[in-house]
Amino acid sequence: MSADTSIPAFGAALIPEPSLRRLPWYLAYVTLLRQQGVDFVSSTQIARQLNVDPSLTSKDLSYLGLHGKTRIGYEVARLEHELEAFLGFRRQHRAVLLGVGSLGRALMLDTGLSSYGLQIVAGFDVDPRLVGSRPYGLPVYHIEELEWRLPQLQASIGIICVPPAAAQATADTLVKLGIAAIWNFTPYRISVPDNIVVTNTSIYAHLALMYNRMGK
Amino acid sequence: MSADTSIPAFGAALIPEPSLRRLPWYLAYVTLLRQQGVDFVSSTQIARQLNVDPSLTSKDLSYLGLHGKTRIGYEVARLEHELEAFLGFRRQHRAVLLGVGSLGRALMLDTGLSSYGLQIVAGFDVDPRLVGSRPYGLPVYHIEELEWRLPQLQASIGIICVPPAAAQATADTLVKLGIAAIWNFTPYRISVPDNIVVTNTSIYAHLALMYNRMGK
Repeated sequence: MSADTSIPAFGAALIPEPSLRRLPWYLAYVTLLRQQGVDFVSSTQIARQLNVDPSLTSKDLSYLGLHGKTRIGYEVARLEHELEAFLGFRRQHRAVLLGVGSLGRALMLDTGLSSYGLQIVAGFDVDPRLVGSRPYGLPVYHIEELEWRLPQLQASIGIICVPPAAAQATADTLVKLGIAAIWNFTPYRISVPDNIVVTNTSIYAHLALMYNRMGK
Repeated sequence: MSADTSIPAFGAALIPEPSLRRLPWYLAYVTLLRQQGVDFVSSTQIARQLNVDPSLTSKDLSYLGLHGKTRIGYEVARLEHELEAFLGFRRQHRAVLLGVGSLGRALMLDTGLSSYGLQIVAGFDVDPRLVGSRPYGLPVYHIEELEWRLPQLQASIGIICVPPAAAQATADTLVKLGIAAIWNFTPYRISVPDNIVVTNTSIYAHLALMYNRMGK
């Protein structure tokens, strides 16, 4: 129907970002259905539940090579499995955490992350009171040790939770040491080479949006 | 230059969302400059640092009624103050936390939120092991007590950290009790009436985006 239909099914890199952003909603819903003992679901039902255009939903799922059967729809258990696999939640990705302050420790505490494929293997900080401690069982090393510890830790993701003033320098160090991806939790907009994946999750920026829409 | 120029300065509700989303980046940068002892900054300098089109930056700031002076630019301290005020970070917004599991406790632990105007005043859960506890000094009540406690707590924001299966029911309860805004941390896409502000922060969806761009 659109120009996108020429994109082959399978091939994670080819799915458009808006489709990719909807997949976690579908996953949350089909997990719920499975827990409720539902065996089959149609794309129309998923779409209606999530306020998405039904034609988009079946198209989004076709990127995973999934096509519902007429009058039956999709098998819930298989759909859940395929969504989890496609989204990368079924394998563990090793990450180091840079900055073990309040937000950094909060992420260490959130065991939910491991259900979504993220394994934080160590923290790094400059604060002598933190270095050598083991919050939630995870080691905290001095940031100066990052260079020799990173290869050993086999982490491909660096999570930046340092103060905004240190965000760019921390990103530069990670890039120099060959990190593949950076998850930036600071409100500072870091610059990195094009080959580095950056995902910004500024929860404080979301707060500003919310306050503004509340009109106060 | 564009149709937007007819929008009057001041009037928080009228700023376009893309502009609003850039303001926290500017704030993080000017805070950094103030800490470094810099007194003045131009919109061009801000824009270059953050990889934004310079014409956008001066326009974004004009929504706050701020206009840089020729050859001098903006006074850093005032710019920081005005951005904080405009973004709602200089006043406290009271919030209740629904679901005091791993992610919920992580948010309670993040004292950074209060620097950005969010004060979590209580948690609610159904788990008898959590109800009555005081993680990080905050009370945890049974969710059944929400109805009579919410007016007393004077909270206008409900933060949803319950399991996805309970997200919609929790949102329905908050709406019924007159909440103004919902900050939804679950991957479940909740439906609410149009007059309720909803901000979705699905950190797990961000993870999926990152994995996908990493190609694995």
